Amino acid sequence: MPVPVILDCDPGHDDAFNILLAAANPAIELLAITTVAGNQTLEKTTLNARRVCSVAGIRGVPIAAGRDRPLHGPRRIAEDIHGASGLDGPGFAAGEPDVPLDPRDALTLVRDTLLAHPAPVTLVPTGPLTNIAVLLLAHPELAGRIERIVMMGGSTERGNTTPAAEFNILCDPEAADIVLRSGLPVTMFGLNATHQAQATPEVVARIAALGTPLSGLCVDLLTYFASTYREVFGFDAPPLHDPLTVAHLIDPTLVGLARAAVAVELTGTHTRGATVVDLHGVTGRPADVEVAMDVDADGFWDLIVDAVRVLGEGRAT
Amino acid sequence: MPVPVILDCDPGHDDAFNILLAAANPAIELLAITTVAGNQTLEKTTLNARRVCSVAGIRGVPIAAGRDRPLHGPRRIAEDIHGASGLDGPGFAAGEPDVPLDPRDALTLVRDTLLAHPAPVTLVPTGPLTNIAVLLLAHPELAGRIERIVMMGGSTERGNTTPAAEFNILCDPEAADIVLRSGLPVTMFGLNATHQAQATPEVVARIAALGTPLSGLCVDLLTYFASTYREVFGFDAPPLHDPLTVAHLIDPTLVGLARAAVAVELTGTHTRGATVVDLHGVTGRPADVEVAMDVDADGFWDLIVDAVRVLGEGRAT
Amino acid sequence: MPVPVILDCDPGHDDAFNILLAAANPAIELLAITTVAGNQTLEKTTLNARRVCSVAGIRGVPIAAGRDRPLHGPRRIAEDIHGASGLDGPGFAAGEPDVPLDPRDALTLVRDTLLAHPAPVTLVPTGPLTNIAVLLLAHPELAGRIERIVMMGGSTERGNTTPAAEFNILCDPEAADIVLRSGLPVTMFGLNATHQAQATPEVVARIAALGTPLSGLCVDLLTYFASTYREVFGFDAPPLHDPLTVAHLIDPTLVGLARAAVAVELTGTHTRGATVVDLHGVTGRPADVEVAMDVDADGFWDLIVDAVRVLGEGRAT
Amino acid sequence: MPVPVILDCDPGHDDAFNILLAAANPAIELLAITTVAGNQTLEKTTLNARRVCSVAGIRGVPIAAGRDRPLHGPRRIAEDIHGASGLDGPGFAAGEPDVPLDPRDALTLVRDTLLAHPAPVTLVPTGPLTNIAVLLLAHPELAGRIERIVMMGGSTERGNTTPAAEFNILCDPEAADIVLRSGLPVTMFGLNATHQAQATPEVVARIAALGTPLSGLCVDLLTYFASTYREVFGFDAPPLHDPLTVAHLIDPTLVGLARAAVAVELTGTHTRGATVVDLHGVTGRPADVEVAMDVDADGFWDLIVDAVRVLGEGRAT
Repeated sequence: MPVPVILDCDPGHDDAFNILLAAANPAIELLAITTVAGNQTLEKTTLNARRVCSVAGIRGVPIAAGRDRPLHGPRRIAEDIHGASGLDGPGFAAGEPDVPLDPRDALTLVRDTLLAHPAPVTLVPTGPLTNIAVLLLAHPELAGRIERIVMMGGSTERGNTTPAAEFNILCDPEAADIVLRSGLPVTMFGLNATHQAQATPEVVARIAALGTPLSGLCVDLLTYFASTYREVFGFDAPPLHDPLTVAHLIDPTLVGLARAAVAVELTGTHTRGATVVDLHGVTGRPADVEVAMDVDADGFWDLIVDAVRVLGEGRAT
Repeated sequence: MPVPVILDCDPGHDDAFNILLAAANPAIELLAITTVAGNQTLEKTTLNARRVCSVAGIRGVPIAAGRDRPLHGPRRIAEDIHGASGLDGPGFAAGEPDVPLDPRDALTLVRDTLLAHPAPVTLVPTGPLTNIAVLLLAHPELAGRIERIVMMGGSTERGNTTPAAEFNILCDPEAADIVLRSGLPVTMFGLNATHQAQATPEVVARIAALGTPLSGLCVDLLTYFASTYREVFGFDAPPLHDPLTVAHLIDPTLVGLARAAVAVELTGTHTRGATVVDLHGVTGRPADVEVAMDVDADGFWDLIVDAVRVLGEGRAT
Repeated sequence: MPVPVILDCDPGHDDAFNILLAAANPAIELLAITTVAGNQTLEKTTLNARRVCSVAGIRGVPIAAGRDRPLHGPRRIAEDIHGASGLDGPGFAAGEPDVPLDPRDALTLVRDTLLAHPAPVTLVPTGPLTNIAVLLLAHPELAGRIERIVMMGGSTERGNTTPAAEFNILCDPEAADIVLRSGLPVTMFGLNATHQAQATPEVVARIAALGTPLSGLCVDLLTYFASTYREVFGFDAPPLHDPLTVAHLIDPTLVGLARAAVAVELTGTHTRGATVVDLHGVTGRPADVEVAMDVDADGFWDLIVDAVRVLGEGRAT
Repeated sequence: MPVPVILDCDPGHDDAFNILLAAANPAIELLAITTVAGNQTLEKTTLNARRVCSVAGIRGVPIAAGRDRPLHGPRRIAEDIHGASGLDGPGFAAGEPDVPLDPRDALTLVRDTLLAHPAPVTLVPTGPLTNIAVLLLAHPELAGRIERIVMMGGSTERGNTTPAAEFNILCDPEAADIVLRSGLPVTMFGLNATHQAQATPEVVARIAALGTPLSGLCVDLLTYFASTYREVFGFDAPPLHDPLTVAHLIDPTLVGLARAAVAVELTGTHTRGATVVDLHGVTGRPADVEVAMDVDADGFWDLIVDAVRVLGEGRAT
């Protein structure tokens, strides 16, 4: 039985690979894709989601646009990392995607999908948590339809956008707080885990060797992503954050998890958006979040390479 | 043309009078009542809304229950002011109300009402702003259906629940922030205004003199309210906060308004929930909120007494 | 037995009158004057203290300069209220004062004064509380030498420099926190009290009628102060904040006091520097501060007019 | 020319070794030791400083007690790590130390020492920064007498006492802020560096092999410290934080330094006391603090072992 999944994302280079992985791997049933402002504006992340599905031949998965701004505070994008389009690098940026936009808004699409699916569904947010927070606020009656929330965001250590805060959480700290305190099971993939999944030259070479048009586009994406990570953070190879979430759903042995209390700092002068992860149990708060710790990077990349191969051969679901 | 209104409330003694005023006065078209946790739990405020309509003969106004907790932070009630039932004092607390609960939740009722009404509707929240914030987050497409928001909450001066914060705002500061920054026209009736509308013995005597069963219940309510305000705050007579909102809609000359920037303090150690009202323009932020200042208390009480009279005589809409 | 006093001030128009009052009234023994950055830079407030003593014939009171910046946060002055010199308006601004600066810094002068005086001394800070906080931190052993602290700052209601914060407290909130939590007896004269002591045209006429050079200078000061208060805050007549402190020491019947817990907001986004005064005992914190409430303005102005008269006749101590 | 040093400490197991290192190594001229509340109460840390000097034969270094509480907020000790005495484990805890307490308070001792020494002096605080902050506030005129400040505290990554904050900074965040913003050169040894200097069994065996009474006491200290670090944090071997400071002064090649802006979080709900270290220059603030990064642990332990040997043989300065 595949895991039924709704992806909520802001593509974004690493979001793109998460879409590919969820669409290609038979262990996942990709029910819907919703978009949110994050790595770029909502308009751009929505267009990018449609482009990724178009070039990868992903058909029949509805795509709907969600919130264009956070619950509170300023809008923020990551143009320094993902470029002016939000998905700079590949040639597919030109031209209109042939995958349509669902006429419903993201909130309605998710509600309809949760109500229609016979079993509870796993939500996989890899951008700011605005859409998920609004869902939980507007439709508390749907909580029982949600199996769990597997998110990319935060860190047990330093942040990236500020010294203390990771981008997705910093974009909408209050939304993250609502999700983490929702009482639903949450698994958090933070920078401490995702920085272990770096797209080394060896990885890029494996994807290039697939020799399909899609693999070429993937190499373009990773090459651009490597260049901005090198320039901004001095990384030798860029971490592909988001797909760890779906990889974990495919193979739970890939990532070691710890249980800990996680608080989102909403009020600090220098630390707003930090995820405060109580790994040593010093705060007395309940250890109710699963936190990704140790990553089997080789196993992870095997899944990614395989997804690009499958979709490149036109054998996707 | 009467003003089409949705009341969003947490009855509550003063909310009860606002329902009476909106139902009785021909200048108002009361489209719906929604309830929120505040003065008491959602269950109790919803029951109280139905009881008020039952005893006052208000029929045909749908009543739906909204959110049972704030967006963030702890739940909070005002049992010291409004009693264990949320509407202590009157005899009507016994027995089931004969006005039914609408099967929809508050969010759906408000959405349906806004979509069905031919003209934009005025929202009148007199409890924590949770329902209104969720509406704005979940349905940004309905903004054009909202004429304005006329709310009771906050203060230009001190608070009441804490030295800095008024009860409605303190219950859900983030919701208040969302409403005040929504870009919709907001008129705020804070404690600085509502403390000018005190139910003096003369006022209570005028209501008692109406001699109807409803007027007797109203006297009971005011008597109980007077006792808690005397005990907790040392007031000679209790301020009837909420009905200033609808009174303003009936007769805009009753309350003088100032324009000012209003910020909700979300982060203070001692001041969370304070409304910071920039009356002298020292912050440089745009003066985009209408703030109630000077109140014609006599004119206000004339409206209240008249509403109790009309409903007591069974001549309500 | 006169009350032995050290004035710690940032003249400033109202500080100037406090110096006159402390020097002229036989109920006060003015032991020393220390200055702090506040209404203007330390250099200017120090020069102004010397100028005030020079023109008023106040000799033999040592004057020393204290801290030129707050413990934390940015430096701030009130040039919009007190002008470029910090004491704009009067003719005496030209020329060097003939009262010298004490060679000691303020911390040393206060320590020496406290150690030398046979009885505990009352500290009267009317500017930011930086000097007093540093004294308490550096010399905890001198606590027994301090009778009490009678300060101008804060408010039970709104602020002036921001909607929430009064100038003296906002300039150095951490210093105010240190003073208020020191365990020493503190009496706070906030805006709620000082706004009752306005220099009306009648008051100014009484001072003018004294007909001395000093009274002329005082009229100049009040005229300038009236103009800025009218422009910035829309006051008909300017409140003379600081001298209420010494007036209270001279005649304790002039100002009604309440006991309350007072917290300084150090962390708010919009409320930093607010004094949160728990007049209704809702916070559970001990009511350990005396807070000025009701002011006998006539009695206050009698003291001020008398001080200008005495000093103008050259009969000061 | 040895480096003239004042140690400001709260012994504390690791502080004890820093005293030994500073007293034993000829590259350091230990001018004075001042104590502060931190790992234990001021009374206990002061007694411990005298005991360490007594058993190690350190004579002629004046020891004075400083502040017994932080500038703001609650007092806090680390009894779970350092035991009821603050220096649990060794036998020397019994009996009175024969090294006397200087009659001056710490502030006076430091002032006198700075004024008396012909060259600027390096301050080495390894506890909460209260004493140093008070020094800078009370005696800004002494800034030119301070060569630099080399402190243990903070982290570029997680904290220890809370997930975000290291103990020394959390004890007195405002003091840390005053020190870091003082304009004086500051070098910060945080947990990211000090966790690289762990007292492994091999290290303990080297010290035991010295075979002196002092080495036996040192082994006792390290054994106790290992037991609490294992229990509270799950460490295999305890990190000896504080002596990295003096080791760096002895041999600057032992620790790699980065320059970065460092802010102390004063206001967070979950992050108060965090040191926010901007290693990637994303905040735009000046990179004005030297931050310890990579540690040569072997070279460090060579210095420690040598210090215990020298003092154990009675050859200290």
